[in-house]
Amino acid sequence: MFINGAVYGDSTIEIFEVAEIQNAKKGSITFLGNKMYNKYLETTSASAMIVSDEKLIKGKNGIVVDNPQLAIAKVLTMFFPEQSFIKKVHPKSIIDSSVKIGKDVTIEAGAVIEAGVDLGENTFIGANVFVGKNSRIGPDCKIFQNVVIYDTTIIGKRSIIHGSVVIGCDGFGFVPGDNEHFKIPQTGRVIIGDDVEIGANTVIDRATIGETIIGDMSKIDNLVHIGHNVQIGKGCLITAQVGIAGSTKVGDNCKMGGQAGIVPHVEVGSNSIIAAKSGVTKSLKGNQMYGGYPARPIREQHKRDAVHSEVLLIKKKLNNLIQNSRSN
Amino acid sequence: MFINGAVYGDSTIEIFEVAEIQNAKKGSITFLGNKMYNKYLETTSASAMIVSDEKLIKGKNGIVVDNPQLAIAKVLTMFFPEQSFIKKVHPKSIIDSSVKIGKDVTIEAGAVIEAGVDLGENTFIGANVFVGKNSRIGPDCKIFQNVVIYDTTIIGKRSIIHGSVVIGCDGFGFVPGDNEHFKIPQTGRVIIGDDVEIGANTVIDRATIGETIIGDMSKIDNLVHIGHNVQIGKGCLITAQVGIAGSTKVGDNCKMGGQAGIVPHVEVGSNSIIAAKSGVTKSLKGNQMYGGYPARPIREQHKRDAVHSEVLLIKKKLNNLIQNSRSN
Amino acid sequence: MFINGAVYGDSTIEIFEVAEIQNAKKGSITFLGNKMYNKYLETTSASAMIVSDEKLIKGKNGIVVDNPQLAIAKVLTMFFPEQSFIKKVHPKSIIDSSVKIGKDVTIEAGAVIEAGVDLGENTFIGANVFVGKNSRIGPDCKIFQNVVIYDTTIIGKRSIIHGSVVIGCDGFGFVPGDNEHFKIPQTGRVIIGDDVEIGANTVIDRATIGETIIGDMSKIDNLVHIGHNVQIGKGCLITAQVGIAGSTKVGDNCKMGGQAGIVPHVEVGSNSIIAAKSGVTKSLKGNQMYGGYPARPIREQHKRDAVHSEVLLIKKKLNNLIQNSRSN
Repeated sequence: MFINGAVYGDSTIEIFEVAEIQNAKKGSITFLGNKMYNKYLETTSASAMIVSDEKLIKGKNGIVVDNPQLAIAKVLTMFFPEQSFIKKVHPKSIIDSSVKIGKDVTIEAGAVIEAGVDLGENTFIGANVFVGKNSRIGPDCKIFQNVVIYDTTIIGKRSIIHGSVVIGCDGFGFVPGDNEHFKIPQTGRVIIGDDVEIGANTVIDRATIGETIIGDMSKIDNLVHIGHNVQIGKGCLITAQVGIAGSTKVGDNCKMGGQAGIVPHVEVGSNSIIAAKSGVTKSLKGNQMYGGYPARPIREQHKRDAVHSEVLLIKKKLNNLIQNSRSN
Repeated sequence: MFINGAVYGDSTIEIFEVAEIQNAKKGSITFLGNKMYNKYLETTSASAMIVSDEKLIKGKNGIVVDNPQLAIAKVLTMFFPEQSFIKKVHPKSIIDSSVKIGKDVTIEAGAVIEAGVDLGENTFIGANVFVGKNSRIGPDCKIFQNVVIYDTTIIGKRSIIHGSVVIGCDGFGFVPGDNEHFKIPQTGRVIIGDDVEIGANTVIDRATIGETIIGDMSKIDNLVHIGHNVQIGKGCLITAQVGIAGSTKVGDNCKMGGQAGIVPHVEVGSNSIIAAKSGVTKSLKGNQMYGGYPARPIREQHKRDAVHSEVLLIKKKLNNLIQNSRSN
Repeated sequence: MFINGAVYGDSTIEIFEVAEIQNAKKGSITFLGNKMYNKYLETTSASAMIVSDEKLIKGKNGIVVDNPQLAIAKVLTMFFPEQSFIKKVHPKSIIDSSVKIGKDVTIEAGAVIEAGVDLGENTFIGANVFVGKNSRIGPDCKIFQNVVIYDTTIIGKRSIIHGSVVIGCDGFGFVPGDNEHFKIPQTGRVIIGDDVEIGANTVIDRATIGETIIGDMSKIDNLVHIGHNVQIGKGCLITAQVGIAGSTKVGDNCKMGGQAGIVPHVEVGSNSIIAAKSGVTKSLKGNQMYGGYPARPIREQHKRDAVHSEVLLIKKKLNNLIQNSRSN
């Protein structure tokens, strides 16, 4: 079968859609991937559900799997197969004669592709995208509409770039002076690995010298800022509105919560989890969770957050003591 | 009259412009909508002013109204009537033959409108906008330049979308694994109500399953992130750089200050006010103001913010006590 | 010579590239502009280095200068001279017949330039840029791809605007009501000075009445929000994801760290340094550094941050005291 799991109840029922548990009806398959939704278990009209524990089935039809989220993702892939479309270069795109266009490349109307660009097989370039000189993209990439890719950028295989992302613009580099901030030429480039996904309106600066790097399988959400010369390892998950300042190095498999920030020139060890809204101000060893501003190991941070309760307790003790000393 | 109010002084003076109080000159009408600007009252050269209290007039010409801000907004509407322009579909736009174009629709050059799109009467589509398959927009909408609207998006009546906004891109949904993060197909859509306004470079993700919803009359500022399956109620005011993570549900008439963030899968009750930079980490009942990270009712948060003063006081008392105990 | 400094070692060696110290090899010139990189001094293979202190040379070849960062920026300018390109108006741009186009202006494909626009000499307009009616840009500006400039915007000399920036969109102005938020017409404009640089996906709102102003030589990073009627002085450095709310006035030479925010209607004095992630809630005098939320002079903020250590100390003293009082 498509997903591995133990089937409970009637395995012959007809399913015509995937639905959220609170909206599921007869004919829906749904899933429980988060305890917060267990409250809908009693009342859901779903014909079948995918859960991680047979106790949750309660006489209904369902499949018990190790990872319900992964299972439903696969079911969705089955219900919504990648749409095939006619692969062609739109006559109203503007493509330099030197551009190499692989087999089955799609280029939509209004896209502008400059000299020396190489587009790998089966890559999709959306409407009004700009690709600057000598960039190399794909194969099998999807570059959605209105993305801006500056010159000499490299994007690996199967990567997805969402609408209005900007890649390879100048880093924020100035030598501050009294009457003039001298612009440091931004002469490097951006290299994006394989299987990367980048959310809409995110910005990734080119390196001052050398390369800004996003490692294979890393996923970046919307409105994220990645400064010049940043290096992101493999398999990182960086959620919306995170900012990573110039020359910082992030290891593999790091996770960052929304609106977190990291100062320039530090190293974040592999397998770090950075809580939402944290501010990382110095290098972190990794393999644990961090939070707060400045970011600390999360337990330490929780102790600090408890300072208010501590103060209330101290106050009580102190007032007792004062009263006692007076009554003596 | 256009605005309701009591006129003081000379009602026949000629007014040729609306100006801020600090820049107003002879012929200007100005207003006082914020006490911080009362300092300019003595010295302003404005020929007339709109205020909420007759004491502020001090012998000058003016109109006393309940809500000076509303009054001046109406005066501005009078001074700057919506500019009429020739409504036409630019020959250099790229429009699929199946697109339904209502009466008086404007489409600027470079816009790309895909198959099955329905554009209601009097809707404006700016230059280089992309509208994906089967989306429905309008009537009376304004979609400013370079906006990207993914397929199957619905936008109601009289809504305004500013430059470079992205609507309907994939939510940030992956099932994390050791060597691969499995992409969860994002199969839902975005529904935007009537009279909504969305600021430049904001991003609204499509739902994984079902719908991401922005309720009627809600106004969203620039650079805001709205995750997949978020539901925003009616009449909300969400200021710049706010981030709302996936599947969170916000009630009606909520206000959020700049750079606030909300975690996924929580509910924010109607009439909540979330202070700027707050981090909402669990569901909130609503009908009050919240602040801090984690966000709490604002009074509670203020007490916590006072911990520093408390500690200073405790320190003093304690040192007294120590001295006393020594001197005994 | 190009940079002023004392030459140590062999001044005849051949240099063919500029490299970061950790990646430098034979033939590279490198520099030390940040102590964090001193650790690479022993092992670098660079043929020459630019440093601020002769002690760092240690028998190698190098130049000692006052400001190594400025020196290397100048060397980079030498290694990467501005690329000359053919200056022309692309036939697939869409330009109103009333547009004034200065000498040596470049306009790429897909750009849309509306009536009454004035483009100064040697200005570059990237692909798919939109310039609204009666705007004035240049001379010597670079407007990168997919930027949206609303009508009546003014941009001075030698300014650089990166990809997908939006300038002059409506400010977030509504008079809140029970069933309707009345839109305040945004009738002003944006004025950007000379030598300004604005990072990708940043948004600058037009004024409600009057002008939103960015002063000469101010540099703004990616994803920054500048509200309506904000005034930024000269020479400011505003890093990524900062948000400045409506009508706030920032003096000259201010620096703001990433993700800082400022409330509306306050004044920030010249030479203020606002730490990353700070929240400015009231006017600041300037000429010093501020941090925290609410932002305070940084020393004061550091004292507050030390509250946790203070509480630990108090706890210890108090427990001693309690024990003593019991043993008495």
